[in-house]
Amino acid sequence: MTTQLYCFGESGNAYKCALALTFADLDWEAVYVDFFNGEARGEEFRKLNPMGEVPVLVDGETVLTQSGVILDYISSKTGQLGGRSAAERRDILRWMFWDNHKFSGQIGTTRFLNNFLPEAKRPEGVIPFQQGRLKAAYRVLEDHLATRDWVVGGAVTIADLSLCGYLYYPEPFGFSRADWPHIDRWLDRIAALPGWKHPYDMMPGNPSDRA
Amino acid sequence: MTTQLYCFGESGNAYKCALALTFADLDWEAVYVDFFNGEARGEEFRKLNPMGEVPVLVDGETVLTQSGVILDYISSKTGQLGGRSAAERRDILRWMFWDNHKFSGQIGTTRFLNNFLPEAKRPEGVIPFQQGRLKAAYRVLEDHLATRDWVVGGAVTIADLSLCGYLYYPEPFGFSRADWPHIDRWLDRIAALPGWKHPYDMMPGNPSDRA
Repeated sequence: MTTQLYCFGESGNAYKCALALTFADLDWEAVYVDFFNGEARGEEFRKLNPMGEVPVLVDGETVLTQSGVILDYISSKTGQLGGRSAAERRDILRWMFWDNHKFSGQIGTTRFLNNFLPEAKRPEGVIPFQQGRLKAAYRVLEDHLATRDWVVGGAVTIADLSLCGYLYYPEPFGFSRADWPHIDRWLDRIAALPGWKHPYDMMPGNPSDRA
Repeated sequence: MTTQLYCFGESGNAYKCALALTFADLDWEAVYVDFFNGEARGEEFRKLNPMGEVPVLVDGETVLTQSGVILDYISSKTGQLGGRSAAERRDILRWMFWDNHKFSGQIGTTRFLNNFLPEAKRPEGVIPFQQGRLKAAYRVLEDHLATRDWVVGGAVTIADLSLCGYLYYPEPFGFSRADWPHIDRWLDRIAALPGWKHPYDMMPGNPSDRA
């Protein structure tokens, strides 16, 4: 049975997994989750993932949630996109935890509040606060990429795919590639890999559906 | 050489690692980082961790950052506090990613803003926003613990230690054990394990130093 990724176009966390499945040459199909009408928080979906979150990967009997776990599984299963030593594997995990905590974790909320929540519902003060914290995080990644092509080791790994997940989207959330030249060139490097597609071309659903 | 944990009492992320080192019977010592005077963001400390964050574990030649990576390392090295199958190991990783993204990751900031930042500097609107998100997260953990003693499998693992990291502190941030009886009993279960200590008894530094 084809591996299924429960996803929707706007989910950068799902996009990370879609990229990994594609770059690892796995046969997969997207199952659309109607997030904006509450499907991910609904009873039916919570049977699949009690955390009420996208993405979910279904590979035969294996059902996985959390993009970090799915990325790790794809890499372990295929022997691709991973580290070449125990130290590299720990370093990949380190960047993936940092991504969940300080990078994508903050970007996802900021982008949601800034673009997908009606202006009247936006909680005052939250967006600038998160943007301030994110500036420090962009700086960490920018400095790291100043002397290297990939986040860990000499080739693309799931650490790159985790960190890039929200950075190709067109909706503004306070990040401009022009401000961070090393991040900018790294994003071009990832986008030049065979099979790369923009999130809205890789997964079903995008803001124009709701326009 | 004794394993060193760079930490300070108020850091729930460091506390997770201190608990794991203790429960795994490793010989370790605390190295105090003067976070509240900016040491973690200083040049000297960034040589150790360019992300500018506590904790850092130094075990001989191995220098590790990010609590999730340190927990995974302690468990791998000692064969303790881990999963008993590939599925359990993935489930542990899943809860640790969720913890970094949705649980400790949000609690740490909320607790900091609510207790350690002068009232005049608190960004308006951020604390209630985060508390609202956290309520949904407490619910996920509470429901999970309704039918089980430990987060994954039949014994304490690093998933429990990751998730409990901020929940024993006395400073208020909107979480009350009385509201979440399953979480409450699970915290008692962890606190009854041999060697358990309160964070301020396990690591140097606490709010009374700055009173």
